[in-house]
Amino acid sequence: MNDLTDFSPNVLAEACPSRQVLKHLTSQWAILVLRALGEGTLRFSQLRRKVGGVSERMLAQTLQVLESDGLVRRVSYPVLPPHVDYTLTPLGAEAAIRVVALTCWIEENLARMKDGERATE
Amino acid sequence: MNDLTDFSPNVLAEACPSRQVLKHLTSQWAILVLRALGEGTLRFSQLRRKVGGVSERMLAQTLQVLESDGLVRRVSYPVLPPHVDYTLTPLGAEAAIRVVALTCWIEENLARMKDGERATE
Repeated sequence: MNDLTDFSPNVLAEACPSRQVLKHLTSQWAILVLRALGEGTLRFSQLRRKVGGVSERMLAQTLQVLESDGLVRRVSYPVLPPHVDYTLTPLGAEAAIRVVALTCWIEENLARMKDGERATE
Repeated sequence: MNDLTDFSPNVLAEACPSRQVLKHLTSQWAILVLRALGEGTLRFSQLRRKVGGVSERMLAQTLQVLESDGLVRRVSYPVLPPHVDYTLTPLGAEAAIRVVALTCWIEENLARMKDGERATE
């Protein structure tokens, strides 16, 4: 295990390793994948339909990064045709709660963002 | 006001206007600016020092986008030398709460992400 006990991670510091995780986790596709998987396990094709606009390549790449960060688990079943599921790990589920909170807030406050705040000044 | 009452925004839908706000709000620099301003009003130079690694140009651009979404307010004082403050609007403060929750979770769980989850499988 890397020794991470002797410093406090701080995303505002350029050299902090948390910055890399922040980049992974807040890429547009990672956010949308976490949000989609927050509703339950999905196959690759289901995930691709659910995350509007994502290419096969970007989805595969995003899933790989999330898997290597320990947020998503890929389960492949030895059947024909091949069947691969993607599911959140317990850690991924914790991340997804924060991502869902942020994205739902955006959805709920979209009208305020488009014209509300500026009109009151 | 745009008529946003006849549909439910959904960030998973490619054409939903919430997708644009998601992109603005979850760019690396926007997240870090919201996090930094969550602690209080700052001048441009203070903000630049606080957000490690941001260039003058990227910071200015990020602040403009956040201002046009109604999340950040720029207040300029007619003094010499010029003095400009950046502060969260009430809407920006609501967004910042979600962003802080996500970034603090990353900081607190960095060690688990680097090796914890995979070691248990």
